[in-house]
Amino acid sequence: MPLPSPAEIGTALRDVDTPALLIDLDAFERNLRRMAEFATSAGVRLRPHSKTHKSPIIAAKQVSLGAVGVCCQKVSEAEVMVDGGIADVLIANEVAGSAKLDRLARLARRARIAVCVDDPDGVAELEAAATKADVQLQVLVEIDVGGRRCGVLPGAPAARLAERIARSPHLGFAGLQAYYGSAQHVREARDRQTRVAEAVAQVRETQALLAAVGLRAEVVTGAGTGTYENEAASGVFTELQAGSYIFMDADYARNMGGNGEPVDTFEHALFVYATVMSAPAPERLVVDAGLKAFAVDSGMPVPWRLPGGLYHRPSDEHGIIDATASSQRPKRGDKVLLVPGHCDPTVNLHDWYVGVRGLGGAEPSVECLWPVAARGALF
Amino acid sequence: MPLPSPAEIGTALRDVDTPALLIDLDAFERNLRRMAEFATSAGVRLRPHSKTHKSPIIAAKQVSLGAVGVCCQKVSEAEVMVDGGIADVLIANEVAGSAKLDRLARLARRARIAVCVDDPDGVAELEAAATKADVQLQVLVEIDVGGRRCGVLPGAPAARLAERIARSPHLGFAGLQAYYGSAQHVREARDRQTRVAEAVAQVRETQALLAAVGLRAEVVTGAGTGTYENEAASGVFTELQAGSYIFMDADYARNMGGNGEPVDTFEHALFVYATVMSAPAPERLVVDAGLKAFAVDSGMPVPWRLPGGLYHRPSDEHGIIDATASSQRPKRGDKVLLVPGHCDPTVNLHDWYVGVRGLGGAEPSVECLWPVAARGALF
Repeated sequence: MPLPSPAEIGTALRDVDTPALLIDLDAFERNLRRMAEFATSAGVRLRPHSKTHKSPIIAAKQVSLGAVGVCCQKVSEAEVMVDGGIADVLIANEVAGSAKLDRLARLARRARIAVCVDDPDGVAELEAAATKADVQLQVLVEIDVGGRRCGVLPGAPAARLAERIARSPHLGFAGLQAYYGSAQHVREARDRQTRVAEAVAQVRETQALLAAVGLRAEVVTGAGTGTYENEAASGVFTELQAGSYIFMDADYARNMGGNGEPVDTFEHALFVYATVMSAPAPERLVVDAGLKAFAVDSGMPVPWRLPGGLYHRPSDEHGIIDATASSQRPKRGDKVLLVPGHCDPTVNLHDWYVGVRGLGGAEPSVECLWPVAARGALF
Repeated sequence: MPLPSPAEIGTALRDVDTPALLIDLDAFERNLRRMAEFATSAGVRLRPHSKTHKSPIIAAKQVSLGAVGVCCQKVSEAEVMVDGGIADVLIANEVAGSAKLDRLARLARRARIAVCVDDPDGVAELEAAATKADVQLQVLVEIDVGGRRCGVLPGAPAARLAERIARSPHLGFAGLQAYYGSAQHVREARDRQTRVAEAVAQVRETQALLAAVGLRAEVVTGAGTGTYENEAASGVFTELQAGSYIFMDADYARNMGGNGEPVDTFEHALFVYATVMSAPAPERLVVDAGLKAFAVDSGMPVPWRLPGGLYHRPSDEHGIIDATASSQRPKRGDKVLLVPGHCDPTVNLHDWYVGVRGLGGAEPSVECLWPVAARGALF
């Protein structure tokens, strides 16, 4: 049971307790529809990453707009998604350790579960867990297309791993995981395109070697909010894993499009709502949201509709807004909206989404409260 | 109800699921005793900050060793502490907003509650909430002794605020909050000493002005793990608020003592336990603990007893250990201990403490499981 929520349905925005994780429902729904329409028009399947939102309620909205299911990063996230009614989950990650593998295999009794592997011992461990649970697991070979994190090398090593999967009685070779994580936040559109082109070449090379041993990667999955258009246009990717598009954090908003302007396909739809709890000086408006309300790994949160306002000097439970360069000057007791630097780990700090409609209007109020059901699902 | 725990009592360390938040109980207990003994010998009261551990179980251990109570940063933390049996809580922070103030005042029916203020309107709001709840609240004036966060200016402005408190029928002027946050991580011992000396001068100046209006700050509270010896020696501080000493993070371990060596009074007692989930190359051991398992605001986690091992490139659920310079080379499936860069926000990411005895020995096992009861208590 999560902590008490910072609001109730119908609460006026100004009365929402802080710090709170706010969704601008209008912008959020536009983001959902835009990506769904893009995937349809591009002829690729959308499997959004649920590590962004950790909510089966949001996952169900994505599925209702055409998504084939979701990605998860952890077995415990997948359990929350299946419990919430999502029937098709790809764990877009390796799973290590017998406790986790047993849970993964048992989950395949209740939903279609696929998982990634990048090591021969990993294949043997998956086969053992699937045998024990008497299930069939779909397995993708993760290839390292340039992200230099997990993944076997493309080409022959990947094909050998696929053969090993195909020979395992309780496993099915389902395809290739070719996610290029470090390409997502490359600022220039042309550079992102170049990197994905390299990834595509490596996928093609691997497909050729798979064909030579009589295998075929039915699924080629990857892409994020920074590069999804490139993968979709590649002709080799069949699934897009983008997740952050639903919320758009301050860091993604720094990516440039082909026109040299910031990409604006998706709108900021996630905010941390904070109160000015002390205002000793214009350069020092102290808000009640710090390192326990935001992740700061990808930069500081950005004050919303407070031009010139700068958030800095976060400590555990405080942050400072310098409003000297702003024409607006929030007072002690006022509440402010802040766009997180990085959505995914920020969401993971909160127990509740507070959904607000009409954020730009005169009297916005709370329309929904959704638990961040997989918050803290680390295993 | 928190998420399932990553272990059970008696689980062998090697079988604890990951990522897990581990306490080395032997080192932790030595840290508890060392600070308790220091406070006793220095003749100051110890009121450890519970924002570090967020656990009434740990708070009770501190009280049993002589602490007078705890500090909290948030009303919701204080509620958890009082629910867990802690009878004396200082909210070492300002509280803004009527919902929080009402909860604060109601809490004073069940425990001795003190709170800070730095604004005349804040005094009026506290008086209104205390009147409504028909309670008496202890109120400290927070003075800005150099940290440049919250706090009224020392001297006359602080004395005027104290008078306003003293005139409020439901409030009692309890003393001064004089915490110098930014001095805690100043590396050189002499520089920390200089800063605290400045704070002490400002406390003395304020005390003189209080005396002139017939008031006295019975409590002068402040200090953290970086400076507690300086405040204790000052003759003006009556209470120490240090919190991190129980766990000691990698950042605090970079502080230097008067001898030019790193301060080693307290031992690392908190770890994130992680599994090598992929090992494509010696420079790239991928562990299953990233931005959702650690806070990285004060630097990366440091591999423990893996000399030359370097943790870097954290992403949401992954981190890379470069072990090329280490004589040990963990393999895929091995588990490693990592010292968090910053304890407080790292603890806030986990639902359970896994307490292990005999960590250096042959067969360490799990002795206790404690919920991080106030995790996510943001309000």
